[in-house]
Amino acid sequence: MYTLYYSPGTASMVVHLALLEIGAPHELRLVDFDTKAQHDPAYLKLNPRGVVPTLVIDGRPLSESAALLMVLAERHSEAKLAPAPGTPEREAWQQWIVYLSNTLMSTYRFWFYPPELGAAEHTPEVRAALQRKIEGVWVLLDAQLAAHGPYLLGAEFSGADLLLTMLMRWSRNMPRPATEWPALKRLADLVRARPSWQKLYEIEGLSEW
Amino acid sequence: MYTLYYSPGTASMVVHLALLEIGAPHELRLVDFDTKAQHDPAYLKLNPRGVVPTLVIDGRPLSESAALLMVLAERHSEAKLAPAPGTPEREAWQQWIVYLSNTLMSTYRFWFYPPELGAAEHTPEVRAALQRKIEGVWVLLDAQLAAHGPYLLGAEFSGADLLLTMLMRWSRNMPRPATEWPALKRLADLVRARPSWQKLYEIEGLSEW
Ligand SMILES: N[C@@H](CCC(=O)N[C@@H](CS)C(=O)NCC(=O)O)C(=O)O
Ligand SMILES: N[C@@H](CCC(=O)N[C@@H](CS)C(=O)NCC(=O)O)C(=O)O
Repeated sequence: MYTLYYSPGTASMVVHLALLEIGAPHELRLVDFDTKAQHDPAYLKLNPRGVVPTLVIDGRPLSESAALLMVLAERHSEAKLAPAPGTPEREAWQQWIVYLSNTLMSTYRFWFYPPELGAAEHTPEVRAALQRKIEGVWVLLDAQLAAHGPYLLGAEFSGADLLLTMLMRWSRNMPRPATEWPALKRLADLVRARPSWQKLYEIEGLSEW
Repeated sequence: MYTLYYSPGTASMVVHLALLEIGAPHELRLVDFDTKAQHDPAYLKLNPRGVVPTLVIDGRPLSESAALLMVLAERHSEAKLAPAPGTPEREAWQQWIVYLSNTLMSTYRFWFYPPELGAAEHTPEVRAALQRKIEGVWVLLDAQLAAHGPYLLGAEFSGADLLLTMLMRWSRNMPRPATEWPALKRLADLVRARPSWQKLYEIEGLSEW
């Protein structure tokens, strides 16, 4: 049995999407950022860093959205969120998920949390540098998708596309949103048309892309 | 057949260690940072971001050290770098590897490459903030290992410990190296005593910890 601790539109989104794609029964528990519920002692027992998501599987709390995507894909191989073990596609899948987590998600963390770089607000230099790093990822991925898309693995949708589309969404208020790159926009349109995406918007109460 | 593009003591180290643990035949290709070989057009074809490691598997180039660790562990399950699929230990293993890559490795990247934050050198504020973030990881992991060690998964060594020890090593010239946390030091001592670690030091010509 799954319990997902989430906050709308945050890193928990990819885990929620994966659960909806799989059709696995799960309970949702809202972690209310407005009341700083992510820092409640009871929540810190599940997630010592005080972030979402946490997925509790049969009583065991696990964290890291990209890892949770891998875990769910492996537990429910019939949902085909990941290619079968032993295939080249599987290895590419692992590469893209780790890349997105290591390079893009971590840079967003600094973008959205200036105190983690020691300032209440970023200096223009730091802001520009983080923006450059994020846009560098769009350039690289757009080239990949233009040549070998429409999905990260080519012709077939996978869970990696859920992670990427969530991360693209986070750029919507940046100076140059990811959807300005055509092959990225094409992938986002495909993922946004999926029933899981639309259902998540309803449940999490999201409106803007 | 495996070909590893590496540079001594860098992120390629965990992949090299995994190959040695597995005992898999492989070729090593040095990417010489002194001549900026990581930016050679031929290398950029294998690794568009111009970083090491790249592991070429049967002609297919793959990157992201943490993903390569997962890929090798899955291809050679007999080496037991990862727990068996379908076990709770496997899921914890995935969580730790993604956490180390997402939170620790990405922060080191900014620590060692100030231009990625838009400056030739970090300001004291940025430097202190990055140090705080890295030390926060040591605090969290030391508590985990003190309670449930000596390894990340408890009693049993796994490939996640190779990744962690490589990342601990990178802190050796920081104001407060990871080995100042006792449970981390204990884990590092265990990993440094392994034949794979010692063999890697010989091959890569490393001396200081
Ligand atoms: N690397 C983590 C990142 C988690 C994270 O940073 N979550 C944010 C929301 S996107 C959060 O919980 N922020 C609340 C806080 O830091 O107080 C993951 O992928 O799960
Ligand atoms: N996230 C990547 C990081 C790779 C990385 O940053 N490698 C560094 C060495 S530790 C590198 O190649 N630096 C050379 C450069 O950026 O010019 C991974 O885990 O493979």
